Amino acid sequence: MADKKQLRIGLVGTGLMGRAHANGYNRIHNFFPALQYEPKLVAVCSRNEEKVKAFAAQWNFESYETDWKALVAREDIDAVDICTPNDSHFEIALACAAAGKMILCEKPLARTLEEGQQMVDAIQKAGVKTTVWYNYRRIPAVTVAKNIIDSGKLGKIYHYRANFLQDWTISEDLPQGGEGLWRMDVGAAGSGVTGDLLAHCIDTAMWLNGGITDVSAMTETFVKQRMHQLTGKVEPVGIDDACLFHCHFENGSLGLFESTRYARGHKALYTFEVNGADASLKWDLHDMNRLEYFDHRDESQTRGWRSIHITDGDHPYIKNWWIPGCGIGWEHSFVHQVADFLKSLEDGSKCSPTFEEALQTQKVCAAVIDSANSKSWKDTHVDGKYVW
Amino acid sequence: MADKKQLRIGLVGTGLMGRAHANGYNRIHNFFPALQYEPKLVAVCSRNEEKVKAFAAQWNFESYETDWKALVAREDIDAVDICTPNDSHFEIALACAAAGKMILCEKPLARTLEEGQQMVDAIQKAGVKTTVWYNYRRIPAVTVAKNIIDSGKLGKIYHYRANFLQDWTISEDLPQGGEGLWRMDVGAAGSGVTGDLLAHCIDTAMWLNGGITDVSAMTETFVKQRMHQLTGKVEPVGIDDACLFHCHFENGSLGLFESTRYARGHKALYTFEVNGADASLKWDLHDMNRLEYFDHRDESQTRGWRSIHITDGDHPYIKNWWIPGCGIGWEHSFVHQVADFLKSLEDGSKCSPTFEEALQTQKVCAAVIDSANSKSWKDTHVDGKYVW
Amino acid sequence: MADKKQLRIGLVGTGLMGRAHANGYNRIHNFFPALQYEPKLVAVCSRNEEKVKAFAAQWNFESYETDWKALVAREDIDAVDICTPNDSHFEIALACAAAGKMILCEKPLARTLEEGQQMVDAIQKAGVKTTVWYNYRRIPAVTVAKNIIDSGKLGKIYHYRANFLQDWTISEDLPQGGEGLWRMDVGAAGSGVTGDLLAHCIDTAMWLNGGITDVSAMTETFVKQRMHQLTGKVEPVGIDDACLFHCHFENGSLGLFESTRYARGHKALYTFEVNGADASLKWDLHDMNRLEYFDHRDESQTRGWRSIHITDGDHPYIKNWWIPGCGIGWEHSFVHQVADFLKSLEDGSKCSPTFEEALQTQKVCAAVIDSANSKSWKDTHVDGKYVW
Amino acid sequence: MADKKQLRIGLVGTGLMGRAHANGYNRIHNFFPALQYEPKLVAVCSRNEEKVKAFAAQWNFESYETDWKALVAREDIDAVDICTPNDSHFEIALACAAAGKMILCEKPLARTLEEGQQMVDAIQKAGVKTTVWYNYRRIPAVTVAKNIIDSGKLGKIYHYRANFLQDWTISEDLPQGGEGLWRMDVGAAGSGVTGDLLAHCIDTAMWLNGGITDVSAMTETFVKQRMHQLTGKVEPVGIDDACLFHCHFENGSLGLFESTRYARGHKALYTFEVNGADASLKWDLHDMNRLEYFDHRDESQTRGWRSIHITDGDHPYIKNWWIPGCGIGWEHSFVHQVADFLKSLEDGSKCSPTFEEALQTQKVCAAVIDSANSKSWKDTHVDGKYVW
Repeated sequence: MADKKQLRIGLVGTGLMGRAHANGYNRIHNFFPALQYEPKLVAVCSRNEEKVKAFAAQWNFESYETDWKALVAREDIDAVDICTPNDSHFEIALACAAAGKMILCEKPLARTLEEGQQMVDAIQKAGVKTTVWYNYRRIPAVTVAKNIIDSGKLGKIYHYRANFLQDWTISEDLPQGGEGLWRMDVGAAGSGVTGDLLAHCIDTAMWLNGGITDVSAMTETFVKQRMHQLTGKVEPVGIDDACLFHCHFENGSLGLFESTRYARGHKALYTFEVNGADASLKWDLHDMNRLEYFDHRDESQTRGWRSIHITDGDHPYIKNWWIPGCGIGWEHSFVHQVADFLKSLEDGSKCSPTFEEALQTQKVCAAVIDSANSKSWKDTHVDGKYVW
Repeated sequence: MADKKQLRIGLVGTGLMGRAHANGYNRIHNFFPALQYEPKLVAVCSRNEEKVKAFAAQWNFESYETDWKALVAREDIDAVDICTPNDSHFEIALACAAAGKMILCEKPLARTLEEGQQMVDAIQKAGVKTTVWYNYRRIPAVTVAKNIIDSGKLGKIYHYRANFLQDWTISEDLPQGGEGLWRMDVGAAGSGVTGDLLAHCIDTAMWLNGGITDVSAMTETFVKQRMHQLTGKVEPVGIDDACLFHCHFENGSLGLFESTRYARGHKALYTFEVNGADASLKWDLHDMNRLEYFDHRDESQTRGWRSIHITDGDHPYIKNWWIPGCGIGWEHSFVHQVADFLKSLEDGSKCSPTFEEALQTQKVCAAVIDSANSKSWKDTHVDGKYVW
Repeated sequence: MADKKQLRIGLVGTGLMGRAHANGYNRIHNFFPALQYEPKLVAVCSRNEEKVKAFAAQWNFESYETDWKALVAREDIDAVDICTPNDSHFEIALACAAAGKMILCEKPLARTLEEGQQMVDAIQKAGVKTTVWYNYRRIPAVTVAKNIIDSGKLGKIYHYRANFLQDWTISEDLPQGGEGLWRMDVGAAGSGVTGDLLAHCIDTAMWLNGGITDVSAMTETFVKQRMHQLTGKVEPVGIDDACLFHCHFENGSLGLFESTRYARGHKALYTFEVNGADASLKWDLHDMNRLEYFDHRDESQTRGWRSIHITDGDHPYIKNWWIPGCGIGWEHSFVHQVADFLKSLEDGSKCSPTFEEALQTQKVCAAVIDSANSKSWKDTHVDGKYVW
Repeated sequence: MADKKQLRIGLVGTGLMGRAHANGYNRIHNFFPALQYEPKLVAVCSRNEEKVKAFAAQWNFESYETDWKALVAREDIDAVDICTPNDSHFEIALACAAAGKMILCEKPLARTLEEGQQMVDAIQKAGVKTTVWYNYRRIPAVTVAKNIIDSGKLGKIYHYRANFLQDWTISEDLPQGGEGLWRMDVGAAGSGVTGDLLAHCIDTAMWLNGGITDVSAMTETFVKQRMHQLTGKVEPVGIDDACLFHCHFENGSLGLFESTRYARGHKALYTFEVNGADASLKWDLHDMNRLEYFDHRDESQTRGWRSIHITDGDHPYIKNWWIPGCGIGWEHSFVHQVADFLKSLEDGSKCSPTFEEALQTQKVCAAVIDSANSKSWKDTHVDGKYVW
């Protein structure tokens, strides 16, 4: 494999997503040997030197930095992977664009639409390749859903519904902000469940079913104030604990979305369902290797929802792993995104979602928050140009 | 059983609901022998004499009428059961009230809030006993859900979500209006899925979780015109084919509701889920003898969603039927409502939902339609007085 | 309906099965109006006069008897339904045959093969019509399974497995024998789970998959002695608490069967699965309105187990009940058997399983017990003549 | 991590299991950083030089061999991992023992009991550390099952049932023998589903529920002859295509086991269920991150089977992976076995199952085959000494 081309990676951020991405890069060599490119883990960056040093050792990075600007400045890096909290995506991405680096940015693209728009402007001006880690697209069952829809099997689509339910912030004693909890701090995160969870739902939805044109939303912050980890003071909570919205898709179908961190009993229950005139399908992250499919064209006596175990060799990505019946895990979705990014280097295609595409999701998120705040319907200004 | 007191019933309407109610009355003798009252099926009414005669014979009514006014006028009838299409609930109910008859009215109470309000005024003035057939409350699993919530096991409630999904009107060739299809005709039905299906969801929701104070809704009519069965002409479709809304409950929790007749693969998928700080529960009409329950107080190693098979003798209503493990069916919910109505005659209690209570559901439905039409949030004016 | 022919019924036994059968007869008038015959409930018999009188009133029998011989002797009865404990099936059936009555006998046919054989000899000599209440065949989902198998969709069949799991006798304090508990008394029951539960599994299995030719079994009595309700003394337990066996079917497939009353968590979990070269199916009594079906001929991307909700109008029996999506219950299987018996009077067909057919199940049960006792394989001597 | 102790590994065999084990070693560095030992992948061996060279490169082995004897002879190797077909386990293991190498042997231990016994004798004489890759024990849900049973929560155990169903050999055109298909060749495999699949079920069963004392089995070879890949000739098939048995456990409970490769619709459906007096549990490899648990001590209104999503930080192994709700895959079970082996080097414990323990499973398998062939019950001669 000495003849592999190398993609020299610099990773910024060593939290949960840092680990998940690092694992993604580390698995390519074992599981995607046919790719022409392979990742070279040049450097990882985090402010805490002891921690980043250990991270580099554990995840096989050749070096580390404690200042992301130093990392971005390195000439031995082709692509920067941004895994930091949302409030630094903007600044780092702009620096990367200026430095001509490819960018792999953790979702959501940014805290706000304004930041996102500037990021898109910057990367377009710089002409750098981008992708955003909406990883759920690359769970094989979700990819099969995409293939089924694209095949036209569903017929005219009437309904799309999705939710993302968690229960980890119910306790009023949970502090906000700071390491491990920056998702609770509106300054760092930009929003609550909307950017964290609904953004995933919206990305998948538009990928599968096209653009969302207008939305009507409501949000709620159940616990109004929490102790802030960094200041040690009880402060108002600025994020949305829950967000619900309905919408129209460009194709005339109706969308229904809900996300919360107050749904006791659900850890990461991301589900979606699509109903078409001829067939329907649904999926659930908690049973991620299954896709449910109903085809009205089946003869009536034996027509029913099919529980498809997505572990066969002819299902997407699966031939790179094991044998039929042997499920893969959540982490594999990140490996697939790395593999697809590398593949896109080979053939010059884009690795969706790009910044432009992720900006469409950002627009919907912004419209959702705006709608909730104004208690009115809002256009998303998604132009469909970058909806796949 | 010669010493049983009799409730002399006159049934108006011989469609699906006529059958379901008639079955309800016919089962009491076999399965609820301990009740002090028993139904006496005095007369059934429908305009088609041949049909109503056959219905009377099949369902053991002593006589029949072809004019509902004649039935209401009969002195040998204590209670009138209104199973006609929605557009006649109003007139019949007012006549019953004037005649001093008890009324058992199929849901929804009326086509419009205005009709419903006048019906309530009339029965209050007349002082007659009423109930409305929101039968799903009396499926044992749903009653267990009520008992669990009332016990406080869920703790503070954050979320309530429900949907009612069907797929029987997808074909554009399906005509509207007339026998068997009056639910497609806005004149006869008052609304589409809102009054037909969401009314059930709203009734259950407020019974379980208290009043709904304001709503934001959207509706859609996917097939804009259909041939009308009665006129033979292609006419505009006035009903809502689908309706989605979110709302606030009086207790601060958020509600999410959806109904459609365009969800391929679902025949009568009524589901609801309630999330509290300590526990959650969910239910699905397609597996009606199960209730799913999650209790966060279970020890962590063995904590999970419990699939409770509601067929044990100490579950509500079940001791009147068979033995543990042997499920009952959809029809039994109507039997239970008859049994509860008869029981309420014994002890002088009300048999919920009364007209007053059903009017609250009507108010929410009206606000939902109003919200969808005006694309704005609407107060429901539910005062909580008649929310259980 | 004055022109209906009548089948004049005498019912012996007023326990759980007496109620279930009585309900079956009572429902025909409402739900199967097209039949030419209708049941006339002439008399019911039980030794306790107070109890039988109340039963007669509750279930609409015109009269009662306290001596089954008196009932069998009545000339106004065409058919006797035997719902007594197993130890009296033999004597009553012989008397019925001698009196020329049709016989509807609760399963199992008899306590022993010897009794069963004499019963068959008697009814053949007398030429009377018979049926045995293996009611699970007439749950619509099970009937659909039969139709699918008969259509050849499964291809060559390799495996059949079934179990029937309960948990109601785990407590060592549960007494044996006497009313409500005669199933625990080997003298009254003939055997334990083999005749009570496995007999159902075997009947369904041979109906679906043909004759069972030889068996290898094990049984266990976990609680060796229990207080006997009738004697008040602690006595050895003679029944099998659990029975497991494997076997060959005539068609070369392998069978695996298990039954127990010590499977904590299962009330009446009767499940079966059939695997063929091309397709498989499975069913579960706890979710009785669903049939699971897998068809290998489906295209690979969307191939999966189909969960068929057996509530559509073109599913067997369903058009007589309600509308799609509305499930029926356990009790309906008995209604269907009555309807099929009445239908068989119209067209002169048999109403399976007849005594001859039920004797085949008895032979398998006898071989199972014999195999367990002798710890060896046993031929069943099922000749296939009466296996459907 | 320079101070880590190294376990120098030589891997023999590069098929599916070679990949799965290689992945196991490769993941330790990323996911189990707290271990004192780390694997050093010194050499891998396979007869085909081109293939083994590529495998070594792909899986990060420092060198390769084409003769396993050369590998075993290397002084820079501490432990040999045997992943070859069953017919070479014996010879390689004996050589390893003679060379004083630790042995990690793929299951089953050997083709026959005789081979297995000699292997145990050899490693005991040599005093080398061993483990056998019965990997399913280390799926977290299965480990939780073990913990629950060991806690006594189930009470007295009555029943254990397991099956392992596949469908990949149904086609009569599938050849036998040779690469990728040696499991079809009795000479290479020793047996069919018994050693391949039931051995897993038996290992888990005895780990969870103690020793199996006697068995009664049946086997079947559905396709009697197949073309042999190596000879090109149609030859008799010597393996068991299906095997069913029941048994007694030492604790008095009854066991029921079934395995086949002819169960259409199932790829790798390994399921087990255990019923105790107080509680029951069940598991299914196709939904491997769930454990179903029923506790009779729950209050009756809310008692039901709990579906436990085994992805929480306090579930076994999980804290090394991701966050709650994010499932892992089949491959992770092998990583866990490597981690446990390394841990056992730290604390001097054994890494179950050792050769001695795996020999008990071998004894049961031998008794099963013997019972099927002789159509009689067979003692297993499992002495309980090495049953955990």
